[in-house]
Amino acid sequence: MRLPLPLLALVCCALMARQHCAAAGKARHLRWEISNMFWSPDCEEKVVIGINGQFPGPTIRARAGDTVHVQLRNALHTEGVVIHWHGIRQIGTPWADGTAAISQCAINPEETFTYRFVVDKPGTYFYHGHYGMQRAAGLYGSLVVDVAEGEEEPFQYDGELNLLLSDWYHESIHTQMVALSSRPFRWIGEPQSLLINGRGQFNCSLAAAHMQGATNQCAATAANTQCAPVVLPVQPNKTYRLRVASTTSLASLNLAIGNHKLTVVEADGNYVDPFVVDDIDLYSGDSYSVLLTTDQDTSSNYWLSVGVRGRLPKTAPALAVLNYRPNRASDLPALAPPVTPAWDDYGHSKAFTYRIRARAGTPPPPPTAARRIELLNTQNRMDGRIRWSINNVSMVLPATPYLGSLKMGLKSTLAAARPAETFSREYDVTLPPPNPNTTVGDNVYVLAHNTTVDVLLQNANALSRNVSEVHPWHLHGHDFWVLGYGDGAYRGDAADEARLNLRDPPLRNTAVIFPYGWTMLRFVADNPGVWAFHCHIEPHLHMGMGVIFAEAVDLVAKVPNEAVSCGATATALMAGGHL
Amino acid sequence: MRLPLPLLALVCCALMARQHCAAAGKARHLRWEISNMFWSPDCEEKVVIGINGQFPGPTIRARAGDTVHVQLRNALHTEGVVIHWHGIRQIGTPWADGTAAISQCAINPEETFTYRFVVDKPGTYFYHGHYGMQRAAGLYGSLVVDVAEGEEEPFQYDGELNLLLSDWYHESIHTQMVALSSRPFRWIGEPQSLLINGRGQFNCSLAAAHMQGATNQCAATAANTQCAPVVLPVQPNKTYRLRVASTTSLASLNLAIGNHKLTVVEADGNYVDPFVVDDIDLYSGDSYSVLLTTDQDTSSNYWLSVGVRGRLPKTAPALAVLNYRPNRASDLPALAPPVTPAWDDYGHSKAFTYRIRARAGTPPPPPTAARRIELLNTQNRMDGRIRWSINNVSMVLPATPYLGSLKMGLKSTLAAARPAETFSREYDVTLPPPNPNTTVGDNVYVLAHNTTVDVLLQNANALSRNVSEVHPWHLHGHDFWVLGYGDGAYRGDAADEARLNLRDPPLRNTAVIFPYGWTMLRFVADNPGVWAFHCHIEPHLHMGMGVIFAEAVDLVAKVPNEAVSCGATATALMAGGHL
Repeated sequence: MRLPLPLLALVCCALMARQHCAAAGKARHLRWEISNMFWSPDCEEKVVIGINGQFPGPTIRARAGDTVHVQLRNALHTEGVVIHWHGIRQIGTPWADGTAAISQCAINPEETFTYRFVVDKPGTYFYHGHYGMQRAAGLYGSLVVDVAEGEEEPFQYDGELNLLLSDWYHESIHTQMVALSSRPFRWIGEPQSLLINGRGQFNCSLAAAHMQGATNQCAATAANTQCAPVVLPVQPNKTYRLRVASTTSLASLNLAIGNHKLTVVEADGNYVDPFVVDDIDLYSGDSYSVLLTTDQDTSSNYWLSVGVRGRLPKTAPALAVLNYRPNRASDLPALAPPVTPAWDDYGHSKAFTYRIRARAGTPPPPPTAARRIELLNTQNRMDGRIRWSINNVSMVLPATPYLGSLKMGLKSTLAAARPAETFSREYDVTLPPPNPNTTVGDNVYVLAHNTTVDVLLQNANALSRNVSEVHPWHLHGHDFWVLGYGDGAYRGDAADEARLNLRDPPLRNTAVIFPYGWTMLRFVADNPGVWAFHCHIEPHLHMGMGVIFAEAVDLVAKVPNEAVSCGATATALMAGGHL
Repeated sequence: MRLPLPLLALVCCALMARQHCAAAGKARHLRWEISNMFWSPDCEEKVVIGINGQFPGPTIRARAGDTVHVQLRNALHTEGVVIHWHGIRQIGTPWADGTAAISQCAINPEETFTYRFVVDKPGTYFYHGHYGMQRAAGLYGSLVVDVAEGEEEPFQYDGELNLLLSDWYHESIHTQMVALSSRPFRWIGEPQSLLINGRGQFNCSLAAAHMQGATNQCAATAANTQCAPVVLPVQPNKTYRLRVASTTSLASLNLAIGNHKLTVVEADGNYVDPFVVDDIDLYSGDSYSVLLTTDQDTSSNYWLSVGVRGRLPKTAPALAVLNYRPNRASDLPALAPPVTPAWDDYGHSKAFTYRIRARAGTPPPPPTAARRIELLNTQNRMDGRIRWSINNVSMVLPATPYLGSLKMGLKSTLAAARPAETFSREYDVTLPPPNPNTTVGDNVYVLAHNTTVDVLLQNANALSRNVSEVHPWHLHGHDFWVLGYGDGAYRGDAADEARLNLRDPPLRNTAVIFPYGWTMLRFVADNPGVWAFHCHIEPHLHMGMGVIFAEAVDLVAKVPNEAVSCGATATALMAGGHL
């Protein structure tokens, strides 16, 4: 007897464990074309990288267990491109992780590459460019994964709103990259605007212009739908799931809605123990779901505000309107926009971050780790440039992607020494580096299969006295448990150990290190591949702030040739080698 | 008996024909790094593409018969790069011609590619980027080939001056490419400045500021050596060889020197019958040598002026100082800068162009051609864009370079129909195209080995009434004989035939078609390879104004893998194919 395929899948599903069932999800086929185009994200016309003529790129919506196929054609003129699916672990498909020079060759102009990967876990994700600073050119979009058919979220809501936050510079990314690589070094400064779903208003103190008519300085741009303020329509007395993610280049953000409490229920595609706050912090790379109940005076609309944290802000807050229907979207809220916390109120930031705990039922971390990698984050000088370094080595990426060159046993072009796994306990994190000189290297850490790894991220003073910056570190291919945070240098003494939470640490893919502080992460190297682990601030990554985890590369299934047909891998394959 | 190698070469030389002798020249090894950098070509700081930190790139100087090796590392962040050696025929080395998607894959960031080629013929050449519009980003430099050791030029001179002319836009090439590919179409307009050896002065009516001190609007920039006016030091009563080449993006140019006559002796690396003029025209892609005798009043310096031809100029002339020593370079010339001819004085342009004849001893053209390819140049619309077309097909380049894909017999990604070899004799070149719609295609013409080919270039009215533009067409891999020019449509009647010169037509690699006119070329397909033939105006090429000559590809020697390890060629090679 032959069963038709869909029926066969159902039968299998009934016989298999649930997680395998999910793998029998739908195939979602997308055809994308990447190109430069004129756009006015903040009402000033610039060149962005768009997808299918849209900025931001199209939102991908799938169910857990679905396989997403993105057939991507590069229609840029002279630039390669890749897309990283931020938060998707790419289990078994490390070549689809979309990191240029790490998981694949950049897709050349006029070429097509198809990403195929399973979205195995419901949650709020996004995607973005991961080559040079292309993310900062606007190459990003949302990726939302719903629970599998027949499954339910562990919380109730009546509707959903989705916000992808970003920041925006008027200088092109080419100029920004030249500046950051220049001798003498030139800093790119603060962004000109913050964007909500790709829309912002430069030089407008109120987003209201578009709603009120031509009465103020923003009036001239009122007709431009590319930068019209975002309106979030809601019905009174309902509960909404607000999905929020930050793909900023530089800015750390805070989001608040006038008079409304927010209940945090998800972080980075993992459920968290619900807690109620007035506002949430988002570092670049973070995503959250918060529940919002429209239980306020229904005669008015309300402002949603997004402001800058962690750096002296020179960028106006972004505003959107929570539009209580049947009020008109253009009715100005009665209350002023909520003021987000002071940029340097780290107490507020830490209080929020420390409240994030795993929801009951989340897999707990292994009780011990087999290996600890300690990474000291410093700012350094090199040949008249400024670089960020990890244990005094600043990452530069090779011509040949690691996934191919390591799998084929080719020598890295940099042939770097094995990077250090620790740093001196004598290092004074409160002062500028005593030796500001650094070198460049691969920063490849080789991880054995299924090792439990602890990563200590240690922050320190930058080159200038009394400056230490926020760095959100993002891990590819995995979630990690955030075991704990502390101020000052990690000493590993009883007090530090007491700050580690093995009971209900949240699972995430991005974790912040606060100024002068440390963060301890744990993950299991159970996903063979080559994975980037880096500060998600785009200029910091460009300046070398990252490392590579090469994980059981011998266990990676056959890498598709098209992912690694460049550089030394291409040469080796042409000479008859195999992946 | 064993001879040491240099001696062996000498012995061989004595035994062989001269042209083979030349091939025993020196090897010139160069290491170049291409990167973006801040520069102020016209005193306004922008981002340029530089070589080894220089703009323009280093001048290459070699002797006929030398082999030039350029080991080129691409240090751009996300862009591929190639370099074309304009005027070098690449006999036997078609993979070194430096045309992206035609002769080779773009060299990816962090990759190194070595160009190796013989400069077989003395002359004035240059090199430039040939990917997207990278030439217009400043990726260019001079290439001067002296006669072989022991040889002599057929004219006398006491000294030499070298000028590489270009135009300069303040918008980045990325923005320019987006504009030219936009719907609706956006024209890039006229250049902001003209540059001499990479230096110009935007918004300065006189280059004199740098010489006179801080007395006018340009004073603020006087200290910037990147845009200091060019000074040409000469001794009185001597004869100088002035080498001049134009690598402009758009502008056609005219060059004159106050009170001095110019004797034209070389065009595009070929000797011409000397003739005396007051000024010379240079279309993009042209190079000339002119002799200049310093026989004027020695108490003064003189201005050299470069102005725009063929388009209503909105760009100030570029000036340089012919500095009669021992006058100071900063002494202002007594005479005003020479005024170059009116932009639309085509009579003047034609008079100059028609005077260019081959020097006695130049190989004559074969008396007849086996094939004639007639190319009608029109401006068209396509999907809301504006394109340039040849016989109503606008060229787009594929992901896989033709040299590899044709050699391996792979199907072109475009799989275009064989392009038309002629166009309707009914076409009215004096009116806008009756069918403005065009399509895109490969435009590959397949040429059998050693065929003598005539190419008729027929100009026509553009999309707007009463507009027909100048187009300088440049052929790769060959020189051609310029048989003749005419006004209006070529009819092939006795009057047209009478305009063809089979006696002493000049050999060149670039030839202009005048507005509403035609130009007839002849060349012998004696250099197996795949060669671009295109309008040398950068935006016109970007808009599709070109064709490809695929010439006896089966006779091309083994193409180095690294030249074609991308796209379908890479896939085929990885599957065990051979080039």
